[in-house]
Amino acid sequence: MNMCRGNILPIISACSIGIGAYLGAKYERLKARPSDEMQDHIGSDSYFPWSIQAATLIPSSVSAPVSNPAEIMRYGFPSLDNVRTFDSFVLAYDRRTRNPHWVFEHLTPDKLPSKHGADRKYSNFFEDLKIHDKFRSLLKDYKYSGYDRGHMAAAGNHRHSQQAMDQTFTLSNISPQVGEGFNRGIWNNLEKYVRSIARKNRNTYVCTGPLYLPRKEADGKTYVKYEVIGQSNVAVPTHFFKVVAIETNAGEFEILSFVLPNQPIQDDVPLKNFLTPLDAIERSAGLLLFDKLPLDKVKLINHQRRR
Amino acid sequence: MNMCRGNILPIISACSIGIGAYLGAKYERLKARPSDEMQDHIGSDSYFPWSIQAATLIPSSVSAPVSNPAEIMRYGFPSLDNVRTFDSFVLAYDRRTRNPHWVFEHLTPDKLPSKHGADRKYSNFFEDLKIHDKFRSLLKDYKYSGYDRGHMAAAGNHRHSQQAMDQTFTLSNISPQVGEGFNRGIWNNLEKYVRSIARKNRNTYVCTGPLYLPRKEADGKTYVKYEVIGQSNVAVPTHFFKVVAIETNAGEFEILSFVLPNQPIQDDVPLKNFLTPLDAIERSAGLLLFDKLPLDKVKLINHQRRR
Repeated sequence: MNMCRGNILPIISACSIGIGAYLGAKYERLKARPSDEMQDHIGSDSYFPWSIQAATLIPSSVSAPVSNPAEIMRYGFPSLDNVRTFDSFVLAYDRRTRNPHWVFEHLTPDKLPSKHGADRKYSNFFEDLKIHDKFRSLLKDYKYSGYDRGHMAAAGNHRHSQQAMDQTFTLSNISPQVGEGFNRGIWNNLEKYVRSIARKNRNTYVCTGPLYLPRKEADGKTYVKYEVIGQSNVAVPTHFFKVVAIETNAGEFEILSFVLPNQPIQDDVPLKNFLTPLDAIERSAGLLLFDKLPLDKVKLINHQRRR
Repeated sequence: MNMCRGNILPIISACSIGIGAYLGAKYERLKARPSDEMQDHIGSDSYFPWSIQAATLIPSSVSAPVSNPAEIMRYGFPSLDNVRTFDSFVLAYDRRTRNPHWVFEHLTPDKLPSKHGADRKYSNFFEDLKIHDKFRSLLKDYKYSGYDRGHMAAAGNHRHSQQAMDQTFTLSNISPQVGEGFNRGIWNNLEKYVRSIARKNRNTYVCTGPLYLPRKEADGKTYVKYEVIGQSNVAVPTHFFKVVAIETNAGEFEILSFVLPNQPIQDDVPLKNFLTPLDAIERSAGLLLFDKLPLDKVKLINHQRRR
């Protein structure tokens, strides 16, 4: 499978999710201007109100090096709320759903050793004590819930350091995922595919997060419905998105954007079936993704036919 | 009805909502410390990253005076995301649900003229052009939806200026509310009650917003379920909260906290039936409310028996 390298194969939609239809998305991303609203908040490229606290946001058991949020999220960051900075990823925590809101990673070939490096057998899931206890998801919320603790920033993306990998096991990076056929199946395949991209390109930026998508019911009305688990009412997302912005070795930019339903999916369904227009993901997540990328240079690789 | 004046009547719970039960709330508010997590974000009392943009956040059709967020939210502000500052209220917009996340007002006797002042017949609902068009709720989303456009900051709280009242009609201050028996009934009664409090006390701070509360279903699992309306999928909240922090003329602090279900409620149900522990509201909204109030001075008036 080769969905993304220097030359882009034409990708034909078999998108079974259709969140574009939900949202009346107009697929006008390429024409869009960087967000005035975000500019209102951020003031200038270098204004990250939370970055000054980066050191204090790191779990106390963990030392430098600190990731550089300005570098990881060079092309736009999605929101300001409850941002947490770890060695090699940055996330915003959604205190209402007790899930990540979004998680950002910056991958490069040299950060992805093909062998050796860290091993997840030394890593343990842990509660994020920097999240206020009224909103923190707990280990016991997941216990006996029937759901896996699914990584947003993938453990396997952070093998360059045991400490960096360990940090991906914080519950603020975790969402409840169907295990068999999803977390242990296609979601894992998607993570591997992203690493295969990152090994071959100059820079790869990945933003991952949960979605709670509406569905029309028999009464003709449209509803959002999702399960919540545990004492903390941790939301079980209906879907997950993963948006991959690639700076190729030729200096061109490409964006791949996926939405996968949080349910068992057969092994032989190709990942390209889950390509989804970036605009539809932005609208349903309530996030602007990579809105600072130089838009005249970006190729959007989504479910629209391209030649 | 006299739920709140210098002396506090004992209030006995007939709380029909029971969100405390959902959340396993511990009602330990009085013992709680101000949030370390919020401190991480805000750095110091005077650090409001968005306040420097206050001028640019005001709709272009509107001129000074600008509200002072540091004053309105003197005792804590709930989140940093997508904050919008108007003449006499401040809100955060939830881009995913296309609803306000929270709306803050500061009321004083001199801002509440009993007669004259502004009139809502001169006010018109309008779309908030400062919200990015991917996330903005639209007038047409509400049209034929069957729901009222319900104010979070009440129009009637801002009669001191026609411009201030007009601003409460921005859709970023609006949630879909059941009309008959709710928006035009008990919700209106609650707003009037808050004004009657504010006329008699030195300072009254009001935080209002939507909730999306979980419910156990026949399969034994717990779900959050809410309708969405219009092309923008504007969420219809299952409940609304209103938290009122009062600084009495004697300089004491009291907090009244309500949760009302977004459904028709009979005229004769007293407001006190909807008093709900602040902790339960905070947990379900994902917000810290008035966490900077001097806690040793605050009386919490909720559904716990008090003598």
